[in-house]
Order: sequence, then C-alpha cells, then structure tokens
Amino acid sequence: MKVRVTVMLKEGVLDPQGKAISHALQTLGFPGVTEVHVGKVIELDVEGSDQAAVQKQAEDMARDLLANLVIEDFKVEVL
Amino acid sequence: MKVRVTVMLKEGVLDPQGKAISHALQTLGFPGVTEVHVGKVIELDVEGSDQAAVQKQAEDMARDLLANLVIEDFKVEVL
Repeated sequence: MKVRVTVMLKEGVLDPQGKAISHALQTLGFPGVTEVHVGKVIELDVEGSDQAAVQKQAEDMARDLLANLVIEDFKVEVL
Repeated sequence: MKVRVTVMLKEGVLDPQGKAISHALQTLGFPGVTEVHVGKVIELDVEGSDQAAVQKQAEDMARDLLANLVIEDFKVEVL
C-alpha cells in the first residue's frame, strides 16, 4: 500500500527556509503571499493489505526516523 | 487562502535521500518497505478569494521558484 507521511515544523519553530521563500516570492512579483511554511513529504510503498496495520506501522516509522518530534509534527495518510 | 504545493522528483531521477531512508527503515526493523520517495511541501497563505486565480498564481510560483522542472514535478492544491 502507498503511504504518505507529511512532516512540518511545529507552530512557533523558526522556519528560515519558509522565510527565504516568502522573501523571494515578494521579489519575484507575488506580493499577496503572507506566510510560507516548508516541510517534507515521504511517500512509502509498504507491504500488507490491512489499512490500520499499515497506518500504525507508518506512524512508528515517523516517530522512530522520519520526524524529529521535538520540533516537528507529522501526519500519515494511507492512499 | 491556503495553498499547498507538493514537489517530488520525477520518475527515474535518482533519489538518494529516499534510498537512505529506505535503508535506515530496514535497519530499524521495518522490512516491508519496498520503495521510498522524498519530496517537499510548501504551504502558502495567499491573499485573494478567487480559487482559480489563487491556483494559477501558485502554479506560477512553483514554475518560477519552488520546483526545478528539469528534475521535479509539482502539484498545487487550494485548501
């Protein structure tokens, strides 16, 4: 099954990459952009057909490796 | 309006970060993971209330700055 894990910085954590993109977009002529947050997305092919089990496994992967829970939140979607 | 731009490497482009995660997951005891792709997600707050116009603007941003179209594809979702 395909699983998508999205990892974003927690609210309040400094996001210099977002700030840089926001500034660059202003410079490029997109003045309407007020806020930018950058995160990562990890798409996994996982063996198994039990959606709940795959979801649980992906959450374990996110906690163990994919996200740094001190500064990041994650979201798991089974596709 | 909130817009999410997801940028992933094109099919066939080498993804060393995905390979590294795949290998690390095997080592950590997740043998069922067969394929891993890593991309980035950019969430933007854009002024305006016309969904089609905001979508178009976000696509322009992706082409101009957020994605490298030689090796990456992007997807825009107005939330």
